[in-house]
Amino acid sequence: MSERYDIAIVGSGPAGLSAAINAKIRNKNIIVFGSKDLSSKIVKAPKINNYLGLPGVTGEQLKEHFKKHVEDMEIEITTERVNNIYAMGDYFALMVNDKTYEATTVILTTGIEFSKPLPGEMEFLGRGVGYCATCDAPLYKGKVATVVGYNKESVEETNFISEIVGKVNFIPMFKDEYSLNPNIEVIKSIPKEVLGTDKVNKLVLKDGEVSTDAVFILKDSISPGQLVPGLEMDEMHIKVNRKMETNLPGLYAAGDITGKPYQYIKAAGEGQMAGLNAVSYIDNKNKASENK
Amino acid sequence: MSERYDIAIVGSGPAGLSAAINAKIRNKNIIVFGSKDLSSKIVKAPKINNYLGLPGVTGEQLKEHFKKHVEDMEIEITTERVNNIYAMGDYFALMVNDKTYEATTVILTTGIEFSKPLPGEMEFLGRGVGYCATCDAPLYKGKVATVVGYNKESVEETNFISEIVGKVNFIPMFKDEYSLNPNIEVIKSIPKEVLGTDKVNKLVLKDGEVSTDAVFILKDSISPGQLVPGLEMDEMHIKVNRKMETNLPGLYAAGDITGKPYQYIKAAGEGQMAGLNAVSYIDNKNKASENK
Repeated sequence: MSERYDIAIVGSGPAGLSAAINAKIRNKNIIVFGSKDLSSKIVKAPKINNYLGLPGVTGEQLKEHFKKHVEDMEIEITTERVNNIYAMGDYFALMVNDKTYEATTVILTTGIEFSKPLPGEMEFLGRGVGYCATCDAPLYKGKVATVVGYNKESVEETNFISEIVGKVNFIPMFKDEYSLNPNIEVIKSIPKEVLGTDKVNKLVLKDGEVSTDAVFILKDSISPGQLVPGLEMDEMHIKVNRKMETNLPGLYAAGDITGKPYQYIKAAGEGQMAGLNAVSYIDNKNKASENK
Repeated sequence: MSERYDIAIVGSGPAGLSAAINAKIRNKNIIVFGSKDLSSKIVKAPKINNYLGLPGVTGEQLKEHFKKHVEDMEIEITTERVNNIYAMGDYFALMVNDKTYEATTVILTTGIEFSKPLPGEMEFLGRGVGYCATCDAPLYKGKVATVVGYNKESVEETNFISEIVGKVNFIPMFKDEYSLNPNIEVIKSIPKEVLGTDKVNKLVLKDGEVSTDAVFILKDSISPGQLVPGLEMDEMHIKVNRKMETNLPGLYAAGDITGKPYQYIKAAGEGQMAGLNAVSYIDNKNKASENK
């Protein structure tokens, strides 16, 4: 049986890290899913002047402050991507590509992906468009799959599916170095539109097009409605109350994903609130089961 | 006519300062009422490990970080005490001992005073016990008033009323130096209970008692229900929604006074939210009046 964590935190921006440090101080057994860079939004920020206590920092400096804090407290970031979360009654199951994690509570701090979906992306979602290449690869044995990769993790996933599907194209949307299997074709262009009839058959690029049966779009953040079946949304945000509780008991959310303004210290404050309330939830649950 | 501020912030803890820096960045004309020490709660904290980005600071260090931030942004702290706030329809009137300030919006970040009321304090409130010595002094001409002073500002107030009432006793509850008028009797003891029949007649001390007609208890924070007539409370906290709006349009609240957990970065996040929403409120109001 796999270990059951007290709290799984999905996201490593200010909301997730603030939840993590508060839960750790309360001696909870936590796991934090995120990226080595912590937050792709923060590292791009040129100047931040409204994070109280750290005047005039660059995004990179603020990230370093956060990194030092979590390292000082021996909190590790797990760089696996959570594809689905299921409420199992007594706990949550978090599905990662090749395994499942269990946690009594979950805190979602996945942020808001500001890029608009491609024309055709939503229309063909589930009919050729997908956000988890490894999950869907078996459907495309002997066929062509095209991966639009926004982060380094997408490289690993692309290598993995190249052993399953017929042919793989990879369109890198980031600047870092990467190492792909030799049977993968790299296309350096920008995707513009997904086309098809009843299913996807083409991805239009800035300078040309590519015939394909599948388009996998691999970004850091996943739409929370897709991530957690049954989660109540308020348009594009997760619906929460002042305690950062969602409609699912034991599931909390914090940061940009819960609504505007999209600001760092607002996110950190909400993360703290979510973390401490998740701690109370666990403590009450443990007390209740002791009294049985 | 006195200057009308865009935003008056009452309180200089993390919620108030975070509101201030955010409002200032948006070019609003603000006034911050608080104390030179910023927050009496923070400076007493031995170690703070859950303010994301500043691991393992002492309260004093955290205060210095905050101080540098507001000084960098040229935000001043006005050390006058606000005794009452009235919603005037189009603006708020903030009553200070000897003058009135006007502001289009108000953000309350007055914190929670953790000390319990003295036995008899609530019972005799308005019947000898008061929280504003200068306001009530005229009622005690020729009589005895005893001031329990928790901060340096209480000294000034005590000097002021010594010219009005018959006799003044002063019980200092802080360690700093102070300079009192010579006709004031200093009692170095600890108040234990307020006694009386229909009105106050005695203050019991740790080592003795003093006959008095009035007991003025002068602390940093004032009960918000007393501060703002008509403000909706949720037991001891101000009732707010996720936007930190109270039931009075244009009046916001943030930090400990809005509920648990009593934590610094939660307060800073809420202060940011209150500050930015107050900015929107003013901008919308200005747009509406331009369109008239």
